[in-house]
Amino acid sequence: MQNRQLLYVNRPKGVLGEDSFASVTGEVVRPGTGEVLCRTILLSIDPANRAWMQARTYREQLAEGTVMAGHGIAEVIASESEVPVGAIVAGPVGWQEYAVLAADEVEQIDVRSELTHYLGVLGITGLTAYFGLLDVGRPTRGDTVLVSGAAGATGNVVGQLATIHGCRPVGIVGSAEKADFLTGTLGFAAAVNYRSPEFGDELRQACPDGVDVFFDNVGGPTLERALRLMNPHGRIANCGAVSQYDTDTPGAGPSGVPGLVITKRLRMQGFIVHDFQDRWDDALRELEGWIASGDLTVVEDVLDDLDSAPAALIGLLEGQNTGKRMVRVSAD
Amino acid sequence: MQNRQLLYVNRPKGVLGEDSFASVTGEVVRPGTGEVLCRTILLSIDPANRAWMQARTYREQLAEGTVMAGHGIAEVIASESEVPVGAIVAGPVGWQEYAVLAADEVEQIDVRSELTHYLGVLGITGLTAYFGLLDVGRPTRGDTVLVSGAAGATGNVVGQLATIHGCRPVGIVGSAEKADFLTGTLGFAAAVNYRSPEFGDELRQACPDGVDVFFDNVGGPTLERALRLMNPHGRIANCGAVSQYDTDTPGAGPSGVPGLVITKRLRMQGFIVHDFQDRWDDALRELEGWIASGDLTVVEDVLDDLDSAPAALIGLLEGQNTGKRMVRVSAD
Repeated sequence: MQNRQLLYVNRPKGVLGEDSFASVTGEVVRPGTGEVLCRTILLSIDPANRAWMQARTYREQLAEGTVMAGHGIAEVIASESEVPVGAIVAGPVGWQEYAVLAADEVEQIDVRSELTHYLGVLGITGLTAYFGLLDVGRPTRGDTVLVSGAAGATGNVVGQLATIHGCRPVGIVGSAEKADFLTGTLGFAAAVNYRSPEFGDELRQACPDGVDVFFDNVGGPTLERALRLMNPHGRIANCGAVSQYDTDTPGAGPSGVPGLVITKRLRMQGFIVHDFQDRWDDALRELEGWIASGDLTVVEDVLDDLDSAPAALIGLLEGQNTGKRMVRVSAD
Repeated sequence: MQNRQLLYVNRPKGVLGEDSFASVTGEVVRPGTGEVLCRTILLSIDPANRAWMQARTYREQLAEGTVMAGHGIAEVIASESEVPVGAIVAGPVGWQEYAVLAADEVEQIDVRSELTHYLGVLGITGLTAYFGLLDVGRPTRGDTVLVSGAAGATGNVVGQLATIHGCRPVGIVGSAEKADFLTGTLGFAAAVNYRSPEFGDELRQACPDGVDVFFDNVGGPTLERALRLMNPHGRIANCGAVSQYDTDTPGAGPSGVPGLVITKRLRMQGFIVHDFQDRWDDALRELEGWIASGDLTVVEDVLDDLDSAPAALIGLLEGQNTGKRMVRVSAD
């Protein structure tokens, strides 16, 4: 049985291009003891894919010449472990049709919803929004919650959760269409296009009472600008720095650090969702409830075919997607 | 009765010089209803004096042509309020021999210790060390606690409190003499001179287990370097940014923000000691206890005469002082 794979072959110099990837076809390998053979169904496309190329993060830097790393959903089709054949699992399948993984690398999904949801609102990005907003940002009713990358997989959920918790979500996005979508369809109080020449004024007007919680997916100049709008004792949940990923030469840090952090007594806190793993189940029940009640709209952006993965990631870094972007590799 | 005053007359262009100040002599004014007339005994010399010239902080920017602002200790010599004549008070007396202040601007001191202590270890700087380290930094036994400006008024207390709480204090200072003083006299585990050409390596060697808590008085490149040494889930108490005060052109922010904040899940938190005012009394009892037991050594740097205040501040910004710097304006 053949296994189509996309290799990561060239560390990008500057902006990521298709030449960082190469398609190869190999033989499917049998699982060894304690392993499972998985058929990839869906691949998650995330800014983190690009960050992994750049440096050591919370995982090792990607090695050139290996299958491109990526999170996905798969069906177990052979097993030499306690994970049964037929199980639907999430795990680091990589950009390939079939993956052999250690049983403890995969997490079985109790499928109660559409499979795509488990890569987005009921997966890492939804949980990231949940814990980053509620546990790190700690909003209280009436707070202005500013979100960057607000039309993205995590950001759109952050804004909707802010509304559910009685806050006023304001989104920062990369196009007027996305801004309209957030305010018209997802219930954001306001949304501002950072590419607008009047961005600074527009953002200030969108936050007339300042910002109490900033959920930042972007870093860079956006973070610098938001620091100026923060209210005393405001909280910044540092979730990502996508403005700094697709480059060899990340910019300087925001000039308000530490000056504004001190004078406004801000808290800036980084987090990753795995720090909250013992509470994922409870969070998923809540998220499922809000989807069922209609309070939480699921926004997904699914592209077809493994070969579209490089362009899907490149486009994500350019800000093409609205909602959770993923690639369908095979049928459920 | 005459009142010698130092006015703040010129906003410094770049580094602060004596030409920002002018000496004048006026008549002492009588207090109005609800006011007290104070005789200045001691003036606190703080990096904040310089920060106030630069921009609005937690207080308004200093206005040129007014008495230079400053915190101090004074005796009430006339009163049109409930504060009795003869009371010893702390408050914003400014750089002058006599000050008329509203009664609610001053705080009566129950003098149980040397008066100088109430500007340092039993005053704002000691309380800043206490709450910044214990409440913001949240060290646990065995933690490495890194302190910048470690020979300064706040920093030396932070390190000593770290030892008292079973942690390993490492200081960053500006001279080899200061480093020797911290390790030889104050019990720091290590101290590193940031002016050393080998500073980066020396700091790394001084923190072989990384840094769990960083108490930062300095900002700038020191903060950038410390971010790289932080352990996962480390805490940074942002107390000051003295590297950025004595200039018209503050540098860029630290390049590890937000990248390292995210991947290491750090918490950076600004604070000012007034946020903890309801717990000052309890903290002061603890600090007094540690002084009495000999666990906390009081380090003070007292200059004589009101006219020495400009040079005292300029020298402080150059890093001349060891311990709490103050100017004695008159006898107790």
